[in-house]
Amino acid sequence: MAMFPNISAVYELIDLALKEDVGSGDVTTNSIVPADHTVTGLIIAREEGIVAGLPVAEAVFRRLDPGLCFSFLAQDGEQAEDGRPLARIEGNARAVLTGERLALNFLQRLSGIATYVNRLARLIAGCKAKIVDTRKTAPGLRVFEKYAVRVGGGGNHRFGLYDAVLIKDNHLKVAGSITRAVQLARAQVPFTMKIEVEVENLDQVQEALAAGADIIMLDNMDPAVMREAVNIVAGRALLEASGRITETNILAVAEAGVDFISVGALTHSARALDISLELM
Amino acid sequence: MAMFPNISAVYELIDLALKEDVGSGDVTTNSIVPADHTVTGLIIAREEGIVAGLPVAEAVFRRLDPGLCFSFLAQDGEQAEDGRPLARIEGNARAVLTGERLALNFLQRLSGIATYVNRLARLIAGCKAKIVDTRKTAPGLRVFEKYAVRVGGGGNHRFGLYDAVLIKDNHLKVAGSITRAVQLARAQVPFTMKIEVEVENLDQVQEALAAGADIIMLDNMDPAVMREAVNIVAGRALLEASGRITETNILAVAEAGVDFISVGALTHSARALDISLELM
Amino acid sequence: MAMFPNISAVYELIDLALKEDVGSGDVTTNSIVPADHTVTGLIIAREEGIVAGLPVAEAVFRRLDPGLCFSFLAQDGEQAEDGRPLARIEGNARAVLTGERLALNFLQRLSGIATYVNRLARLIAGCKAKIVDTRKTAPGLRVFEKYAVRVGGGGNHRFGLYDAVLIKDNHLKVAGSITRAVQLARAQVPFTMKIEVEVENLDQVQEALAAGADIIMLDNMDPAVMREAVNIVAGRALLEASGRITETNILAVAEAGVDFISVGALTHSARALDISLELM
Amino acid sequence: MAMFPNISAVYELIDLALKEDVGSGDVTTNSIVPADHTVTGLIIAREEGIVAGLPVAEAVFRRLDPGLCFSFLAQDGEQAEDGRPLARIEGNARAVLTGERLALNFLQRLSGIATYVNRLARLIAGCKAKIVDTRKTAPGLRVFEKYAVRVGGGGNHRFGLYDAVLIKDNHLKVAGSITRAVQLARAQVPFTMKIEVEVENLDQVQEALAAGADIIMLDNMDPAVMREAVNIVAGRALLEASGRITETNILAVAEAGVDFISVGALTHSARALDISLELM
Amino acid sequence: MAMFPNISAVYELIDLALKEDVGSGDVTTNSIVPADHTVTGLIIAREEGIVAGLPVAEAVFRRLDPGLCFSFLAQDGEQAEDGRPLARIEGNARAVLTGERLALNFLQRLSGIATYVNRLARLIAGCKAKIVDTRKTAPGLRVFEKYAVRVGGGGNHRFGLYDAVLIKDNHLKVAGSITRAVQLARAQVPFTMKIEVEVENLDQVQEALAAGADIIMLDNMDPAVMREAVNIVAGRALLEASGRITETNILAVAEAGVDFISVGALTHSARALDISLELM
Amino acid sequence: MAMFPNISAVYELIDLALKEDVGSGDVTTNSIVPADHTVTGLIIAREEGIVAGLPVAEAVFRRLDPGLCFSFLAQDGEQAEDGRPLARIEGNARAVLTGERLALNFLQRLSGIATYVNRLARLIAGCKAKIVDTRKTAPGLRVFEKYAVRVGGGGNHRFGLYDAVLIKDNHLKVAGSITRAVQLARAQVPFTMKIEVEVENLDQVQEALAAGADIIMLDNMDPAVMREAVNIVAGRALLEASGRITETNILAVAEAGVDFISVGALTHSARALDISLELM
Repeated sequence: MAMFPNISAVYELIDLALKEDVGSGDVTTNSIVPADHTVTGLIIAREEGIVAGLPVAEAVFRRLDPGLCFSFLAQDGEQAEDGRPLARIEGNARAVLTGERLALNFLQRLSGIATYVNRLARLIAGCKAKIVDTRKTAPGLRVFEKYAVRVGGGGNHRFGLYDAVLIKDNHLKVAGSITRAVQLARAQVPFTMKIEVEVENLDQVQEALAAGADIIMLDNMDPAVMREAVNIVAGRALLEASGRITETNILAVAEAGVDFISVGALTHSARALDISLELM
Repeated sequence: MAMFPNISAVYELIDLALKEDVGSGDVTTNSIVPADHTVTGLIIAREEGIVAGLPVAEAVFRRLDPGLCFSFLAQDGEQAEDGRPLARIEGNARAVLTGERLALNFLQRLSGIATYVNRLARLIAGCKAKIVDTRKTAPGLRVFEKYAVRVGGGGNHRFGLYDAVLIKDNHLKVAGSITRAVQLARAQVPFTMKIEVEVENLDQVQEALAAGADIIMLDNMDPAVMREAVNIVAGRALLEASGRITETNILAVAEAGVDFISVGALTHSARALDISLELM
Repeated sequence: MAMFPNISAVYELIDLALKEDVGSGDVTTNSIVPADHTVTGLIIAREEGIVAGLPVAEAVFRRLDPGLCFSFLAQDGEQAEDGRPLARIEGNARAVLTGERLALNFLQRLSGIATYVNRLARLIAGCKAKIVDTRKTAPGLRVFEKYAVRVGGGGNHRFGLYDAVLIKDNHLKVAGSITRAVQLARAQVPFTMKIEVEVENLDQVQEALAAGADIIMLDNMDPAVMREAVNIVAGRALLEASGRITETNILAVAEAGVDFISVGALTHSARALDISLELM
Repeated sequence: MAMFPNISAVYELIDLALKEDVGSGDVTTNSIVPADHTVTGLIIAREEGIVAGLPVAEAVFRRLDPGLCFSFLAQDGEQAEDGRPLARIEGNARAVLTGERLALNFLQRLSGIATYVNRLARLIAGCKAKIVDTRKTAPGLRVFEKYAVRVGGGGNHRFGLYDAVLIKDNHLKVAGSITRAVQLARAQVPFTMKIEVEVENLDQVQEALAAGADIIMLDNMDPAVMREAVNIVAGRALLEASGRITETNILAVAEAGVDFISVGALTHSARALDISLELM
Repeated sequence: MAMFPNISAVYELIDLALKEDVGSGDVTTNSIVPADHTVTGLIIAREEGIVAGLPVAEAVFRRLDPGLCFSFLAQDGEQAEDGRPLARIEGNARAVLTGERLALNFLQRLSGIATYVNRLARLIAGCKAKIVDTRKTAPGLRVFEKYAVRVGGGGNHRFGLYDAVLIKDNHLKVAGSITRAVQLARAQVPFTMKIEVEVENLDQVQEALAAGADIIMLDNMDPAVMREAVNIVAGRALLEASGRITETNILAVAEAGVDFISVGALTHSARALDISLELM
Repeated sequence: MAMFPNISAVYELIDLALKEDVGSGDVTTNSIVPADHTVTGLIIAREEGIVAGLPVAEAVFRRLDPGLCFSFLAQDGEQAEDGRPLARIEGNARAVLTGERLALNFLQRLSGIATYVNRLARLIAGCKAKIVDTRKTAPGLRVFEKYAVRVGGGGNHRFGLYDAVLIKDNHLKVAGSITRAVQLARAQVPFTMKIEVEVENLDQVQEALAAGADIIMLDNMDPAVMREAVNIVAGRALLEASGRITETNILAVAEAGVDFISVGALTHSARALDISLELM
């Protein structure tokens, strides 16, 4: 699980999810499968896509059987096609059967995200822009979903409300102006934090730049206007394009010259990849 | 939150998700917005669909400002179109801005599920069959997602591994036969539980019926074969169709006469509904 | 601990109980016993009865000394008499002395329950009826106590309010009628759940049967009336006898032909079995 | 709940027990009872005994409906007879029905303990000796059970391993002698703690006294020997009688002149008092 | 508690600390003070200093008596002298007596920190440099201690390992060079994060600047060398002085022209301010 | 960690502190240091003092790398001078770098306390009196800080409000008199607990003694008056001196003949000892 920055939080989430599913016990498995029975199984892709989450699946099974043997037949980030075995599992039969659904739920969801990111990333392959995620993640699963974005070839925006300042339209309504909002933030947050400002037009780009924003988010702008913003800023701040980016318009946005393109759908609307577990 | 069976668990999930997002603090809001500032805002649908999760959104905001006023302008289960206001919020500005993203994350996800269920349900409107969910939910969010399925007009399959016996192919590989698996379960689980068996052909239907299964799941069967199963069973057990049900084939499955049709995609692949919060 | 359906919940309960007893530290043991001292001890029955809970005792000790050696000299479910050694323990002396009381508290309580169940079960040995427990368990200890019931030869009723519908007199007062209560439940709970109805007379038996109840609980009925209920139902639902069952009347109840006899006293009033730990 | 020393811990235990029973939801109540329905009910004693635990029952219901009205018709410590109403409840019907069993489980158990203590206390009414409890409590429920002992007219021994030193036979086997064990403890535990030593004969009484024990526990001694111990100690330490105290021998023990008589059965083997909840 | 960015975490810490101190109950207060007794008291400074933590003290008392009245007679950040009343408390006597020590422990510690920061800040009053804290805080109390630093007139460095990159000497030993370390970080952390590098000489200043460090920490440098670093950097990065800063040398460091001076002793070695609670 | 009475509580505190510092991940280390890199380092004292907390430092690192090798080059309680290596660490580089600050935070704080206790203890080396701590500890860290006091050669006062009765001035204001307060406590607390009374003059000493106090705390008394108290009590109760004890007056207090001298500054105002970690 070395790819996750905070390993103990990851196990807490897995335990929570196991508790949700197992509750007072897996009545089916416990009544049918002898306590010391062992099985061997394969995790197999059932359609084409980018694999993500195999170490999470391993952790789920290991939580139920610490001695289980989980052999990686693929690595996160690799391409899978229908029928490709991704991992081989050998361990306590109860652990395997009780953990199967949760392991697959993680694996299918994360692979679905990585696959979607990857499809978008290939569309803008030659450009400088990097695809990044948002905070539109499934509540509780952010650390996994942001990992899947990296596996798929994207980058991460801030992890939460705590690790960067992002002044959005609703903050500006309270603060009155970009200039004042940036001043207030600069005076109070740790000096080690960047400040980003969401803008809707070129005047706001100018004001954010003058106020000393480290990053400027161009919200729902036309690519042509974005290009002007790129020229205005001229490298003095990072530029992020945001808002209703689709497979159709992403190349135009990238060609406008922004540094980052954030896409909420990466995490809130990716389709799960079909993956199954077959006992041998 | 009366619609959720276990209210305290619901608040635990909301708190966990708030902790994930807020961490050591919302640096933007806390530095820009005065502690006693109040705001009024509208939650507004940005596309057509079935609304689900307004009480969850309310709970998120109330967790941050117990005195916040949340007025429902729509009810869960109602149809929304682009521009329809769903709720009016009046309360502490920090609470509203800090909770906005999480409230919307829940609302968009649950409305997306309800919208998808509803679309499928309308496709089989005249049939006896009821659409039900599976355990393929986002880890940790099952109680919310199963609620959204009910809001959209579907029914629920078991909540977890603990509240019904479901003997699947991988259990049968260990048990040896349907008959033996059902016997083992019957002998050990509380007598208050139903036993369901997953079958792949008509011989197995016969065996499951003879073994005393309360429910028989027809896995990946052709609708014509399902129809035969319906005739064989003749009301002596409930019948559930499962496996790769799509908008294309669901009517044929329903017309085969099964009692329930379970669809994993309801929860693992529903697209989020677009909903936003506008301060006034 | 393979006999417990949800192992991690079991360890949570043990940890909670250890925390309750140990608090800021076992001041006696820590000041008197060297940290690296080891001891050998025997767990010995001090009266006749059915042993239950040895794996729980083992888990308590192992929580305090993961390397402790716990040898089973008896198995749960076996008969003990005064002086029979049940287990041999060899491990860190602090762990053994700190864990002794909690391990014995579990073992004495669970063995007391198993012994009581067993005595009742032998009274109705030739009958079809099976003795089952209720939800009248010590708060927090249900999973252990229901296990002890199984060890003693009984069966389990539902584990909690979440895994089966049981419509009792107080529900009927709200719902108005058995028929309406069953309809409401059927419409909303997962289709995978059974519905039981508590009745007080034969008219209600008829109504519950007609409403489609899966199980009918005969509450505080005279055995003669129960026999009539058995005839009326004729196998179309399961029948459970309940209410003030004692060693005196249990055989008459069983001979009435019911399927299950539930006894609250199994868990709320069983006397602890005398068991001690002797260091060698 | 002012009678409980640590109120937040009490609510934690109630929440844990509610979670155990309610799990993913009270499927019966939630499907049959409207969310806003209110009911009135009476908690009624069904046999004679000492009431204990009414504030715990109140807390259970209030946890589920903070606005519920719970009127005390009896106070903890009062005598109940069959038919006496103990409390009147008016509140949300779902809260009352979901909480009923847990509230009664606490109330019946604690009243059973208080009733048992009271019966023993009356047997030794004229003597100096006070009946006290032990650590043989239901794991997790110690704070409640020790409260019930006080309600019934008994006193408390230490709360756990952390608040007094009690050197027992198994400690002595490690330490080698009473003298050394007391010295070790005195040197290391907070000087604010008392030290008690368990002894089996009069020589040990002498040694414990000489070693400076604050309390001496006379384990399984004949009352005649206890009387000699009382004479030897002559008020220089407190004396506690322990071991297989029953209704038959308790008066003889008390008349031997000890200060305290500890009885494990108070908590590990008390029979629950019959109490029910009737909706009006 | 609006001054704390993450209110629920603050209450968790208070609850943990209450649990540590109260354990199974405040035996003194509960046996001596009637449950419904009320008292009035004053929190009074016993020496000169800057007050910090009054809202934390209030929260401690309110946790034990939600209806307690806590009147601020001083505000955090104000100067106190011996005898100045800081707050007036009126509420349940048990709550006041049980909470007294913990409330004072917080108040004395935080006021001690604020007083120390303030003394240092006044020493460099005319300079650009701002005094900031480090991660050398009491484990578990960082959010409080960093708040006290702000109250005393200082600023905050990063909150933890998660909200900014700080490449220290030990990281450089692994990475090989500043340039490579900065590249690795830039490639993998969210683009919303700043990168700081710790350097020990002017060559490293040059390399860090060239590598694109946002902040450069001058570790244990002579003020004269710091001045050269200031000239080299010329505003292209922020400069932080660190290492063995004392009241003696802090002005020289500030006059060297750095932007920030971090002082570990602010939190790891501040002396508590003497403050007491007097009942009236 | 055998020196800590309650090991699992110790790990909870370490985990909490790790969570505080690591949050969503150590972004620096995770991006720069390969997941499987190993390092060797030395923990080195940077000034003279008594070492305390090495097992805590070990536990911090082991929590992050269970296989890490931690070799003790010094033992808690030994004297360190500038440059003395205290421990050698060999393990996963990420674990070492992520845990470094927390391990040092514990080690520096606890060594600072032990050093301070030791300095005071040497000042009264020939006297009977023992230096003890108070409840003025850093919230959440009491178990560690009381351990450091023992390491430095002091003793412990009670651990919290739960393990001894201490009747202070504010309790007396409510109770009315020492006599009544002691009576109330005696009647209600476990008979296994000692009762201490805080007094301000010799009349109160007399009253406390007559009331049967086990310990009398002489608060802020002149050493000459303390000597009179010692004569009055004549061994019938333990005597504790308390209040504004400094390096200047501690010898006079000890020579007055008291049994214990409690010093709040041991824990609330000790300066951290300088200790660092150097990679090799």
